[in-house]
Amino acid sequence: MVRWEPGARGRLGQAAFELFTERGFEQVTVAEIAERAGLTERTFFRYFADKREVLFAGAEGFQDLFVSSVAGAPDSAAPIDAVAGALYAAAAMFAAHEDGVRRRSAIIAAHPDLRERELVKLSTVAAAVADALRRRGVTDPAASLTAEAGLAVFRIAFASWIADPDGPDLAQLITESLDELRAVAAGK
Amino acid sequence: MVRWEPGARGRLGQAAFELFTERGFEQVTVAEIAERAGLTERTFFRYFADKREVLFAGAEGFQDLFVSSVAGAPDSAAPIDAVAGALYAAAAMFAAHEDGVRRRSAIIAAHPDLRERELVKLSTVAAAVADALRRRGVTDPAASLTAEAGLAVFRIAFASWIADPDGPDLAQLITESLDELRAVAAGK
Repeated sequence: MVRWEPGARGRLGQAAFELFTERGFEQVTVAEIAERAGLTERTFFRYFADKREVLFAGAEGFQDLFVSSVAGAPDSAAPIDAVAGALYAAAAMFAAHEDGVRRRSAIIAAHPDLRERELVKLSTVAAAVADALRRRGVTDPAASLTAEAGLAVFRIAFASWIADPDGPDLAQLITESLDELRAVAAGK
Repeated sequence: MVRWEPGARGRLGQAAFELFTERGFEQVTVAEIAERAGLTERTFFRYFADKREVLFAGAEGFQDLFVSSVAGAPDSAAPIDAVAGALYAAAAMFAAHEDGVRRRSAIIAAHPDLRERELVKLSTVAAAVADALRRRGVTDPAASLTAEAGLAVFRIAFASWIADPDGPDLAQLITESLDELRAVAAGK
């Protein structure tokens, strides 16, 4: 989500994250991002529609990770277990880029319109996961429900992880949240 | 959600729904809504920030219904059963205003930005339901998970109900969706 490859795109992303963190998202202009990266505004717009998009540039990779994890789960895996595998894969990716993920999360949390955009992106991921489950032969409403419940587990575990940097790691919070989902669905 | 009280607010809402359905949301101006209602634009803006808000004016009532249903569930009810009660209450309200609900849903489905707005509103309802559960003594992550899973059940049942006007009623779809949630969470 926030792993910037070398090259112009990566330099722009890196520069934008630094500036958003230093000055706040609102205060940063595209011209400043380009300048920090040693590139032109024109180059910026070759990669990103606007400064907001820099924050969501990794969303496609995040979605691909979910979809390929679900697709790659053993045939014998129950739908919720296929989705659980995807949640752990995402947790591993986040753990490997923890600083960037926390920084991104702080920027988004501070702006209602960025929070809305994040919500919309996550709902797109849920729809893609439901499609991946359907391709495994899961019928509706089970496919949609598993995807939505799985993403809810992820959102809730992620929020706990962000709230407490010294707390349990994300994978453990996901395990707890999945256990809790089983319990609440069973009426406990 | 789409029950317009008598008076200026109700007449404006009624006029807006008629015009959106006749001509499409994009094509309708506030001036036209006010004219159809026999009122001035100035009066329109006393009740609504813009024409989009007419579609979401019922969201507060919808949220209140959820929150009061959860709060009013018997002390002995499991969290998911308290939320299920709220889903059935919403289903009953929707059934009583089926034409308006379907019309509103068609308008929203046709516009990505309205769909995003709806998503954000539903996430606000989920947060309010989680708060209502916490006031019943439910701890986190169970409170958030139950609320999110409950709203997912509602969204999925609602989508089926909208897709097939001659199909099962909304309450029955909610029952099926709740059963399915239990099954998928249990790894079936």
